[in-house]
Amino acid sequence: MFEAEALIAMLGERAREASRILAKSPRAKRDGVLLRIAAKLGENHAELMRANQADLERAARSGLSTAMIDRLALAENTLATMAKGVAQIAAADDPIGAVSGRERQPSGIEVARMRVPIGVIGIIYEARPNVTIDAAALCLKSGNACILRGGREALETNVALGRVIEAALREEDLPPACVQVIATEERDVVDAMAKAVNFIDVIIPRGGRGLIERLMAIARVPMIKHLEGVCHVYIDAGARLDRALAIADNAKTQRYGTCNTMETLLVHDAIARRFLPEIAAIYRAKGVEMRGDSRVQELIAGVSTATEDDWRAEYLAPVVAIRVVDSLDAAIDHINHYGSHHTDAIVTEDAANTDRFLREVDSASVLNNASTRLADGFEFGLGAEIGISNDKLHARGPVGILGLTSIKYVVYGDGQLRKD
Amino acid sequence: MFEAEALIAMLGERAREASRILAKSPRAKRDGVLLRIAAKLGENHAELMRANQADLERAARSGLSTAMIDRLALAENTLATMAKGVAQIAAADDPIGAVSGRERQPSGIEVARMRVPIGVIGIIYEARPNVTIDAAALCLKSGNACILRGGREALETNVALGRVIEAALREEDLPPACVQVIATEERDVVDAMAKAVNFIDVIIPRGGRGLIERLMAIARVPMIKHLEGVCHVYIDAGARLDRALAIADNAKTQRYGTCNTMETLLVHDAIARRFLPEIAAIYRAKGVEMRGDSRVQELIAGVSTATEDDWRAEYLAPVVAIRVVDSLDAAIDHINHYGSHHTDAIVTEDAANTDRFLREVDSASVLNNASTRLADGFEFGLGAEIGISNDKLHARGPVGILGLTSIKYVVYGDGQLRKD
Repeated sequence: MFEAEALIAMLGERAREASRILAKSPRAKRDGVLLRIAAKLGENHAELMRANQADLERAARSGLSTAMIDRLALAENTLATMAKGVAQIAAADDPIGAVSGRERQPSGIEVARMRVPIGVIGIIYEARPNVTIDAAALCLKSGNACILRGGREALETNVALGRVIEAALREEDLPPACVQVIATEERDVVDAMAKAVNFIDVIIPRGGRGLIERLMAIARVPMIKHLEGVCHVYIDAGARLDRALAIADNAKTQRYGTCNTMETLLVHDAIARRFLPEIAAIYRAKGVEMRGDSRVQELIAGVSTATEDDWRAEYLAPVVAIRVVDSLDAAIDHINHYGSHHTDAIVTEDAANTDRFLREVDSASVLNNASTRLADGFEFGLGAEIGISNDKLHARGPVGILGLTSIKYVVYGDGQLRKD
Repeated sequence: MFEAEALIAMLGERAREASRILAKSPRAKRDGVLLRIAAKLGENHAELMRANQADLERAARSGLSTAMIDRLALAENTLATMAKGVAQIAAADDPIGAVSGRERQPSGIEVARMRVPIGVIGIIYEARPNVTIDAAALCLKSGNACILRGGREALETNVALGRVIEAALREEDLPPACVQVIATEERDVVDAMAKAVNFIDVIIPRGGRGLIERLMAIARVPMIKHLEGVCHVYIDAGARLDRALAIADNAKTQRYGTCNTMETLLVHDAIARRFLPEIAAIYRAKGVEMRGDSRVQELIAGVSTATEDDWRAEYLAPVVAIRVVDSLDAAIDHINHYGSHHTDAIVTEDAANTDRFLREVDSASVLNNASTRLADGFEFGLGAEIGISNDKLHARGPVGILGLTSIKYVVYGDGQLRKD
C-alpha cells in the first residue's frame, strides 16, 4: 500500500499545481487543447489502433469475456467519434469565471458568486478507452486537473491516449500534469486515490456496483457516484393507452443493460384490464420475462410470482416486475420505498396527478409521458455527461460540465468593517 | 455500539417517513410551525429557563470551563432573540418546489429543475442551545427532517426545546419526527449517526476541530463541514493607507475567536515601510502579539520570528503572523499554499489586481476592500446560516436555506421515446 500512496501523493501534488494554472487559463487555451486532442486522434490513428491491438491480444490470451472485449476494442471509426465528442465539448459554453447574482448588502458590500473549477478530480473506470478521452475533455473544459485510472485491460490504449493528450497540453503551453493517466497495473492505486483527501477533491467512479460499493466502504474523498437504477414506469388511470404501451415498451426493451431502463412497471387498477394484456403481448414477442403480483397474474398468463426481491431488483436484462396499484399514492409509495431514486416516469393525461408525481417522487429524474430511457445528459441538453449521480448533494442526476464546477463568493467593498 | 446503531436506525426510519410528509407540505404549514415555535419560546420562558438552570448546576458541579458555561447559559433575553431569528426564517422566501430553466430539447421533451429538500439532516453540535432552535428552523423551512444531537452538557435545555418544537409540529398536524432531539448522553450515538448512510442524507457537524477531524475519519454519510479558518488580508501596493489600516485592524481585532478572523497579514514591499509601523502601533495598543519574517522585523520592533507553523496557524487569539511579499503573485501563492481556503481579502484600489486576486485565490470567500469578518450568511444576504463550509462540493462558504436543498430534473413529455 505504501508505494501506491506515494505514487498518488506524487501525482496529486503535480495535479494540484497544474490545477492552479489551468483554473486561471483563458477559455481559448482550454478549448485549444481540446481541438488539438480531436485533431491528434485522427493523426495518430495507426499508433492508437496498434496500442489497442496489444491490449486486445493480451485480453484474448487471459480469456476476457466477449462483453469486456467489445468495450475495450476501438473500431475503425471509434477514434473519429471520440474526436467529434471532444470538439463538441470545446464548442460548449465556458462556465468558468462567470459572476452572477451581484447584490448590494446593508453594509454596502456587493456580494456575487463566481463559478470556479473544483480542483483535482480522480476518475476510476473500467476498460473503456472512450472514458479516458471523454473524462479528460470534460475536466479540461471545466478547468479541473484530473487523474485517470482506467481498467488494467486497457492499459496500452490508455497510455497511448495519454500521450496524445499530453502533446496537446504542451502545444498550448499548459502543464502535462493537467491530465495524468495512471500507467500501472496495481489495484491498490484505486484505494489510495479514494483516500487521498489532501490531493484529490472528488472521485468519480464509473463502473459496476462491485467497484462502487468497495469504494463507498473505504473512500475519504467525496464521491459523485452512480450506484444503481431501479427505475419505474407508472401507468396512471388517466393514461392514454397508446402512449402507455409505447412508453412501457421503449423503457423496458430499447436497451436492457442501461441504468435508466425500467425494471418495475406499476399499473393503476382502473386501466390494468385494458393495458396489461396488450403490453404482455409485446413483451412476450420480445422474449421479456414477466414477474407479477397476484392481480397481474389474474389478468395475464405466463407470469411468475414477483417476490420482495423483485421489487428491489435492477435486472439489466429482459425481465420486468409488474404490480397493480389502487392509487397514485400507492404508486408513489412503492417507488419511494423500493426504488433507487434514479429515474421514474408517470404516464397520464391528468395534470394534477402529474404535478403530484413529479413533486413527490424522490428521484433524480422524474418524467411525465416520456420514456425513462431519455434521462441522460445529451437528451437533457447538458451536452456530454461524466455520469449520472444517485447522490443528493452537489450534483444529482445526469452530470455535465457544470457538475464539475463549484462557486466562490466574491465581495466588492469600499472599506467596510464588521460592526460590534 | 449496537445500541447506538439501533437507536439511530429507529430515529432514522421515523425521520425518513416524516421527511416525505414534510417535503410535500405547503409553505404555510412549515412557516406555521416556525411561527408557533417563536411564540412558544416566549410562552414557555419559565420552564425553559428552569431546564437550563438544571444544566448549569450540573455543569458547575462537573467543573465545566467558564467559556463553555457562557455558551450553555440562556440569558434573560436569549429566548426572545432566538424567537426573532425563527420568525425571520419563516419570513424568508420558500425555495421548495420552485421550477427553473424549463427548456425544450431536440426530442421534444421539456426539461426543468425543481428545487427539493435533501431529506434527513443530522446535526452534531456542542452545548449551545441556540443551535437547537436555529438548526431545527432552517431544516423545517427547507423541508428537511432533522436529527439533532447537541452537547451532553445542554441535555435538559435541549429536551425542553425539543418539547416546544414537538408541540408546534403537532399543532400544524406534522409528524413530531420532523425534528428529533437525541436525549441520551451516549457518545457513540455521534459515531452511529456519521455511519448511518441508510437513514441520514447529510451530517452537518458544528464544533471544534477535534470533533470534525474525528468525524472525518469515520463518517460514511456525506458531511457539510467547517474545518478551520486560516484567513489572510493582503495589503497591495495599490492600497489606500487608511483603508488598509482600518481593515487590518478590524479583521484581526474585532473578535479573536471567530473563523473569519484574519490570522496572517501579507504586505506588499512597496507599502510596507509606511503601513507596518502604523498597524504595529494599533496592534501593540490592543495587546496583539506579532510574529513576522525578517523583513517585518527590520521595519517594526518587538516582533518575534514567524516559523513555518505560524503561516499555517489558526490562532483564534490576539496573535498575528505578518509577512512582506514582493508581488501580488507571491501573496496569492502564499494564500493558496498555507491558507485553509476559507476567507481572504485584498486591500487595493488597483482594479486589475483585484480581479486577479478574486479569481486566483482558491477560497470560499474572497473580498476586495472589506474586512474578512464580513464573510457570513447574514452579511452576505443569505439570512440565517447553518454554518460556513470549507468543502468545494455542494455548498461552499456560508450555508443558508438553499444549501439545505437539492434539485431534481422534471421532464414534461407527450409520448417521447428513446430512438436507437
